[in-house]
Amino acid sequence: MTLSYQSILDAETRIRPHKVITPLLSSDRLNQKLPFDLFVKADCLQRTGSFKFRGACNAVFSLDAPDKPILAYSSGNHAQAVALAARISGRKATIVMPKDAPVAKIEGTRSYGADVVLYDRYSECREEIGAALANEQEAELIAPYDDERVIAGQGTAGLEIAQQLQNLNRELDIFFCCCGGGGLMAGTSLVLSQHFEDSELYTAEPEGFDDTARSLVSGARETNDPSARSICDAIITPTPGLLTFPVVQSKAAGGKVVTDDEALSAMKTAWDYFKLTVEPGGAVALAAALQQDVIKDQKTDNRKTVVIILSGGNCDKDMFARALAAPALI
Amino acid sequence: MTLSYQSILDAETRIRPHKVITPLLSSDRLNQKLPFDLFVKADCLQRTGSFKFRGACNAVFSLDAPDKPILAYSSGNHAQAVALAARISGRKATIVMPKDAPVAKIEGTRSYGADVVLYDRYSECREEIGAALANEQEAELIAPYDDERVIAGQGTAGLEIAQQLQNLNRELDIFFCCCGGGGLMAGTSLVLSQHFEDSELYTAEPEGFDDTARSLVSGARETNDPSARSICDAIITPTPGLLTFPVVQSKAAGGKVVTDDEALSAMKTAWDYFKLTVEPGGAVALAAALQQDVIKDQKTDNRKTVVIILSGGNCDKDMFARALAAPALI
Repeated sequence: MTLSYQSILDAETRIRPHKVITPLLSSDRLNQKLPFDLFVKADCLQRTGSFKFRGACNAVFSLDAPDKPILAYSSGNHAQAVALAARISGRKATIVMPKDAPVAKIEGTRSYGADVVLYDRYSECREEIGAALANEQEAELIAPYDDERVIAGQGTAGLEIAQQLQNLNRELDIFFCCCGGGGLMAGTSLVLSQHFEDSELYTAEPEGFDDTARSLVSGARETNDPSARSICDAIITPTPGLLTFPVVQSKAAGGKVVTDDEALSAMKTAWDYFKLTVEPGGAVALAAALQQDVIKDQKTDNRKTVVIILSGGNCDKDMFARALAAPALI
Repeated sequence: MTLSYQSILDAETRIRPHKVITPLLSSDRLNQKLPFDLFVKADCLQRTGSFKFRGACNAVFSLDAPDKPILAYSSGNHAQAVALAARISGRKATIVMPKDAPVAKIEGTRSYGADVVLYDRYSECREEIGAALANEQEAELIAPYDDERVIAGQGTAGLEIAQQLQNLNRELDIFFCCCGGGGLMAGTSLVLSQHFEDSELYTAEPEGFDDTARSLVSGARETNDPSARSICDAIITPTPGLLTFPVVQSKAAGGKVVTDDEALSAMKTAWDYFKLTVEPGGAVALAAALQQDVIKDQKTDNRKTVVIILSGGNCDKDMFARALAAPALI
């Protein structure tokens, strides 16, 4: 398989009976306050609570050997997604997770029947632990983003956005997508650039984990300071993916960076206007779209169509309460 | 126009560029605890926060006279829906609302540009106030449920459910739908009974406002005790609709009744498993599906497909907090 528009169409056919077609929502109350029409793709409502289910399903369902066990390493959302995809296809799954992952994500992964192996995010290498376990179990390793099957699966979110905009008789002008390893951005940008040639596609990352934004400027895969910390646990990866970055580089107009406080305020905005519960990493694209420079740039007579993905909703109650108490973005 | 399956297909064509195709969600964690596979149609994510936008749009967009002003009476969700539909089509709207409606609903209606006229729900007659104002303003009155255009619009939720079940390769076995005046149940049951001949369709109502359940038993349109009260403000109507009841009577297998406490617990369930914010009246169908007698009835080897509609999400923060503190249903 080579990553292509066709491979995303194939993924769509493969996973359609299992995934949710998540809605593309707009808030008329919010749009009254904005100089553009904002649409949010609520993939926080995907099964297992994040877009990761798309890629995990496509990867697992692509396997030929019916009994081959599955192995994955993940900060939590890919973990739950692979665990459920494995169970749907009747396979055993082992998931390597950081021991400081949100409790809800660890419990969620176990609830789908997977074995969970915990490691220290800051002193151990999950790729090494994963490779060793995969070797020992003769298991199929499903990487969270550097896997063409995974990227193609994530791209199905882009197919849905294109269809939903068509239903609304709209063209895409600007798109913001959260970016950890870059699987979602690579898959969706491949689709959206084909459907909407004149659109501008941006990544959004948390402060301290802006490796993609810097890589897009320098042209080489930059890394983050290992001492950086963020509440956006779902998307704090050390460097852009080997497979994802060339795609992102060829499609993205640039990279936006948001602070943890902006992510919290975006979570509040998602609840105030859309009644959606989003996790911090799932809210960074919304935070990016509502930054003052973006709003100032769009103060034209011609209201543009802006789409962002709310990529995950696996938020602990304490974090949700913290977000609801945050100041409004808009 | 006569209410028919075709009139619902026409409504779908008329409103498609404006409505949201809301998702049909399942929770694998919740289904593990149930003897059936539950799917929730999240119409709380519809524009203006409830299914009412479907019927309001179809009614307003069906009008020939382009400048005719619009008038409606509503406890809040139909109010917001008509206000936005009127604004989209460039018409003036006046909405008669009970003065004890949730503040968010009154403010929401005003935010869409409508004039709001308040009345006392328990001592004044909204139908009389509405008719007088409609006459004075030469306005088109759009009733909340006893209007074929409105019923046909609500039916589009049924078309979406049928398509979504087809995507999942599933047939409908059992359906629960909240019921105030009966517009949503009439429209959706007309569609679902055609697509799934062997399905069982039930209404769900709050305790004290079980006029439809009693009417289905007696065969005549029963009324509620005027002293009854419920937190389910969206669906506390005095009696089944003149137009809706014959349809509901011909399609429904029976009527379920839930307490306010069960509605609160269902709101908590909707957040725990689906991360959705639902208002009390929007949660009664979920509460009905999770009642112990339903669960006991379904303890068979053959897991059935059960669909419920979460019909509205316009919930004040205090009520949401109260729900999150409620005991779990399951």
